[in-house]
This record gives sequence, C-alpha cells and structure tokens, in this order.
Amino acid sequence: MTTAGAHDVKARSPQARPVVRGRQLSDAERARTLAASTTIAALATATLDHHAHPFASVAPFGIDRRGWPVLCLSALAEHSRNLVADPRASLLVAEALSPGTDPLAGGRVTLVGRAARVGDDEVPAARALHLAANPHAAAYVDYGDFRLWRLEVERVRWVGGYGRMAWIDGHEWSAAEPDPLAPHAEAVLAHLNGDHAKACLALAHTVGLRPNAFVATAVGVDRYGLELAISGPGGPSWLRLPFDAEVATIEQAQSAAAALVDSAGGVPDGGP
Amino acid sequence: MTTAGAHDVKARSPQARPVVRGRQLSDAERARTLAASTTIAALATATLDHHAHPFASVAPFGIDRRGWPVLCLSALAEHSRNLVADPRASLLVAEALSPGTDPLAGGRVTLVGRAARVGDDEVPAARALHLAANPHAAAYVDYGDFRLWRLEVERVRWVGGYGRMAWIDGHEWSAAEPDPLAPHAEAVLAHLNGDHAKACLALAHTVGLRPNAFVATAVGVDRYGLELAISGPGGPSWLRLPFDAEVATIEQAQSAAAALVDSAGGVPDGGP
Repeated sequence: MTTAGAHDVKARSPQARPVVRGRQLSDAERARTLAASTTIAALATATLDHHAHPFASVAPFGIDRRGWPVLCLSALAEHSRNLVADPRASLLVAEALSPGTDPLAGGRVTLVGRAARVGDDEVPAARALHLAANPHAAAYVDYGDFRLWRLEVERVRWVGGYGRMAWIDGHEWSAAEPDPLAPHAEAVLAHLNGDHAKACLALAHTVGLRPNAFVATAVGVDRYGLELAISGPGGPSWLRLPFDAEVATIEQAQSAAAALVDSAGGVPDGGP
Repeated sequence: MTTAGAHDVKARSPQARPVVRGRQLSDAERARTLAASTTIAALATATLDHHAHPFASVAPFGIDRRGWPVLCLSALAEHSRNLVADPRASLLVAEALSPGTDPLAGGRVTLVGRAARVGDDEVPAARALHLAANPHAAAYVDYGDFRLWRLEVERVRWVGGYGRMAWIDGHEWSAAEPDPLAPHAEAVLAHLNGDHAKACLALAHTVGLRPNAFVATAVGVDRYGLELAISGPGGPSWLRLPFDAEVATIEQAQSAAAALVDSAGGVPDGGP
C-alpha cells in the first residue's frame, strides 16, 4: 500500500499518534494512481431493452493523459449495444488485493461519464494506447466487430478504504497525475527496510518525536514523501516526512530518503 | 480451467478434432459454478440523482441455493442510496485469472435483477450466509449502517470466454447447481497427470481414436466426466468421456477415472 496514510492508522489503532509534515497526494492523485495500476475494469451501462436497467460487464482499458479510459469493445457485446443507444456509463477500477485481504479495505474508483466512439483521426493513437495497456487486444483489435470507445469522465467516486472517500470532479481528475513513483514504491520500501532500518529508526527518534521507539518500518512512499510506522513504548505511531523535491525514480527516492536521514542528524546504514 | 470444453479447442486450433461423449455441464451449471468460485463482485446500480446513470461499485457477496446473491451494504454508500430509490441492479462476477492471462478469455457472469432488503425474519440466515462467504464482514455486519440485501435474479448473461455465451433465465439459474467437484478439480487433474499419465494415454489410444497419440493430458474434470487434450501425429485433439455416475469428491472422481481406464482395456499406472 503506497497510499496508506494517517487515516488508516487512526482507524486501525486508537493509540496511533500521526505526525504528518509536508504535501501529501491529493484524493485525485490517489485515485489517478489507482486507475493507472491495472488495465481491467467493470463497466456499467444502461440496458437498451430494459428501460436502462444497470448492466455490469468486463472491460479491459487503457487510460489517456486526461484520465479518460479507452475501451475496445465488440459491437456484438451487450455493453456496446447499450452504449450505442445510451452513452451513459461508469467504469469501476479496483485495487488488486492479496488473497485473504478484506475487499472493502482496498481502494476503488468509479469513473462516471459518457462513452463516445473514438473519431477516425484519433483511432491510431487510441489503438496504440489501448494495445500498450492490453497486449492481448492485439488478437482482436483489428477485427471488424471491435470498436474503440472513450469514456469522457464527468465525475469520479474514490473510496480509499474504510472511511476514506471523496467525489472528484472531471476537471480535477483530468488535471491530476498518477504518482510516478507508484510502480517503484514496493522496491523502494523493500530497500529502505532491508538495508536502512537503522536510518529509519533514527528518523523516528529525532523527527518522529519517539526517542524510545524500537522499530520504524517504511510503509509508504510517493512522489512527495516517505511514511514510517513506528512501534515503541506507548504504542504505535505514524510519521510522514516530505522530500525536499518531488521524486519519480527509484534513485531519486533513495537520494531523497538519504537526505532526510542526513537532515535528521542520523547516520545512514552502510551497504548499497 | 475445469470448464474448458470442445468449443475452446475449436477456437484455438483449427486442427482439433473433438470427441465428446456423454453429458456436459449446461451453461447454467457453468455459470453457477463460476459464481460460486469467488465472493467479490462489481455491482451496477442506477444513480439516484442523475436520472439512473449506471454506477459500478465493489460488493462482496454470498450466494444462496437459488443463486441469489446476498449483499451487506453500508446505507451511507452510493449503491445503497441508489437501490433504495431504484432496486434494479446487476452483479458481475468474473473468474479469477492468473496474471498475464487475457481477461476476455476468462469466464464472467452478470446476474440481472432487483435488489430487496432481507426481511427481518430472514436476517439470521442471510447474515450467516454472507459471513460464511466473507469472514471480513464480521467487522461491520452488525454496525448500524450496514444492511443485508438480496439480488433477486431475473436473467443472467454468461460469457465463458471468446465465442461462448448465453442468456440464462432466472428459473433455470435457480434450478442449476454449481459443480460440486469444482473445488477439487485442480487436485484431481494434478493427480491424474502426475500419477496416471499412461492411463490417460491409454484412453487416448483406445477411446479417443488416436492410436498413435504420444501425450494425453487431463485438462478438465467435472461432476459428469473427464476431458483430455491429446497430441500426436496429425495435430491436437480433444476427448471428453462421461463417468458412469456423477461424482462430487476427489475419491469419487479418482474411482470414476479408474473405471474409465478399465472399461477402455487400459492398465492403470501403479502408485497411489
């Protein structure tokens, strides 16, 4: 979970004392990040023959810079027949969860809008975008019955887990970016916890206001900062620290984390 | 894939020569089996404030004997507000796929119907059913804002992969059963291919009309029979053989497979 934050810990543990500094991902950024994390979704359309009865189906998607999904749908499928008659639709993207995880603890986002056929002049770009996200579509994208559609997003419902939710309007959605560090967050956290556990603990001791903490685990990292879960006498707490500048790569994140440790007066662990 | 059948192979390989004997799972049975394989789905509802704009959300579910999903929804969530005003809904259940699998090659089923609050006298049974399917719901099922709902299924859209699809009416859906062998199919296939490969090949030679086949792999098993994929000179083929009687357990399936080998004049492999 790279988007875990103070609210999560407060919900899980009444003893948590979050210390949060600096900029965090906005709801729109968290939602865009989630939507960029997968390429398979559930599409809700209004059934043609049944007075707009809501109909849910599987839809692979790519997503463009505005955050508008690009779909490749068979004209023979129910959802295509529905969209031709009524373009209103929504697309549900859910966070991939490990088996056994509470599904309601995971993030999900519903993009609400209207679907439109991709115009002829835009087909090459939309086709390439969809194929980059869904290589399997190469087997059918050029079949006569498949059509490219775009969902023009008007509003977005984001649920980040229990008790974290927001409506995001279409302009804010399109203006936000997915966190560029998200694809690397797991590797950055593994590196910090594996090779720099003492440095993380030093941050807890100094910046985290927990001089007697005995464990600090890096549990979240994004373009704006690093998050530590801290254990010690008095229970758990949470520390979020901002990077000096936004990061987008593993190397930048590691340098920024090292700078945090330096500024806290700690000594980074040895090793790579 | 326990539901793989002759249609799959025909689609994948123009050389396939399926030999199919005996009863197969009906579309309704395949769809019920799929719906019984998971407990997390996408719910499509009609948005209250936006003239029934289709809205997709995450919904954990259990499923009763009639094949009607039992949901536990927060009254504060969008889908609950929608259902109170308009009970029309559908629930999409998709087959869990290994990473990298083409999502459109997987099975999915959309249960279309009307949602109704579970009546007070039925709450204990519905609560137990939902909890058995979703143990995580224990954390919230008794909260004041959660309500039990039932989706009364009127019709079902089943898609079994490319080119395999059907509408199933509500009565047929409720009358069908999930394949009781499905939870054990993977183990049965592993046993057959691991310990009884020669017996499978003997079946291909005799019953499968492929006397020169060099490999036969058990690729599907269900309550009614066993399916083998056969390779040999002349390309691949497919063999489906019925069991003498329906099976529901690993032991019954193994006995039935052994009986198939005996009846074909083959000699089962040694070993357990």
